[in-house]
Amino acid sequence: MLFFTQCFGAVLDLIHLRFQHYKAKRVFSAAGQLVCVVNPTHSLKYAPTRCAAAQASAEQGILPPCHHHEAVHDPQLVPCTCPLFSCPWEGHLEVVVSHLRQTHRINILQGAEIVFLATDMHLPAPTDWIIMHSCLGHQFLLVLRKQEKYEGHPQFFATMMLIGTPTQANNFTYRLELNRNQRRLKWEATPRSILECVDSVISDGDCLVLNTSLAQLFSDNGSLAIGIAITTSKAHSSEAEM
Amino acid sequence: MLFFTQCFGAVLDLIHLRFQHYKAKRVFSAAGQLVCVVNPTHSLKYAPTRCAAAQASAEQGILPPCHHHEAVHDPQLVPCTCPLFSCPWEGHLEVVVSHLRQTHRINILQGAEIVFLATDMHLPAPTDWIIMHSCLGHQFLLVLRKQEKYEGHPQFFATMMLIGTPTQANNFTYRLELNRNQRRLKWEATPRSILECVDSVISDGDCLVLNTSLAQLFSDNGSLAIGIAITTSKAHSSEAEM
Repeated sequence: MLFFTQCFGAVLDLIHLRFQHYKAKRVFSAAGQLVCVVNPTHSLKYAPTRCAAAQASAEQGILPPCHHHEAVHDPQLVPCTCPLFSCPWEGHLEVVVSHLRQTHRINILQGAEIVFLATDMHLPAPTDWIIMHSCLGHQFLLVLRKQEKYEGHPQFFATMMLIGTPTQANNFTYRLELNRNQRRLKWEATPRSILECVDSVISDGDCLVLNTSLAQLFSDNGSLAIGIAITTSKAHSSEAEM
Repeated sequence: MLFFTQCFGAVLDLIHLRFQHYKAKRVFSAAGQLVCVVNPTHSLKYAPTRCAAAQASAEQGILPPCHHHEAVHDPQLVPCTCPLFSCPWEGHLEVVVSHLRQTHRINILQGAEIVFLATDMHLPAPTDWIIMHSCLGHQFLLVLRKQEKYEGHPQFFATMMLIGTPTQANNFTYRLELNRNQRRLKWEATPRSILECVDSVISDGDCLVLNTSLAQLFSDNGSLAIGIAITTSKAHSSEAEM
């Protein structure tokens, strides 16, 4: 009897995992706005052991970090900017997007205004929700992170980074907007360059910060919808640079 | 020699106090917008001893809480809603504004859009910055509080309360806006009624919440400017109720 109960439990777990995988891939259009369902990923950077990391990635169907290749000391090479892994990859800025897409399986979305729908907000910290966003001829990385800066008090941090240089980043303004339960919270800033570290932007708190109570007020059924818009802050300066 | 040094120190302290007092009263118009300089006040509610409270109020030129009068059990009477003091005053809702003004010396400002300029943001928690705001035929209480929810990590909480009933409060929307250093943070919500406790709104985190690092990014020379706007959320419903 116990054997059958365990089998049934395992089947239910498999169905749940399959559903989660399906949700991650789902991109649909609601009320004319592109909504992207983004599933959480446990950051493996701070995993206590390599074994635990491998196990977590196997559980979540994520590829392990790519293998170290020969170190090349070319100043034009940038390290892998994926916030999830301590990845030893290096390459030119132009190929970072394809590396993030192919090796770390980060989805990319097109459109000036999109809705980022982060699921399973209740999962324990540290957890990341990540997508790339292609807009105005550039690619951006959106990171939502649940982290305990103060022990026992998880907070949510959201920021947008340009996959480009700091000079290019200065030409844009990004806006993150939460809107629910007769409350609205908007954060507008210049994106930081991916060459700066996501971790330091978040530890500096120079991003949209949400306490758990506010995150709950803005959540619907465990999911948080963040409206994203990107505009050029200086007309033509982007073109001139290109 | 020591005596003269001490005397000089005392004179400097007096000049500083006088300047602080002058700043608190100052209301000026910059770039067409009404800017109100608001000085901090230490909350005396949680003061460890009565002596310390009396000393603090004497130092800051604030009147001590009014004396207890005879308890009247009239359901139309509301308690004093001043967030600074445990005041035993009771009265009708219509006279709360004059009580706050006369007994607790809270300033009142007119205008649909004002700038609340909180000074001395570096002062240790708990500290409050409070004004009343008269607009659209009603009075609102704006509270900015520096408080340590997590020991050693002070945060800033800002909310707006209607000096009226919860039904009346539902007719309005308030907006708090911070704008500096190419960053903008906006919070929009329905004001809560003064009949609900300011302390519980803040402890629930259902308000604008700022970490110290974000508060510093938005501050200029130790002062934080918050743009405030109030609008009616339902047309004519306010008039109908009146």
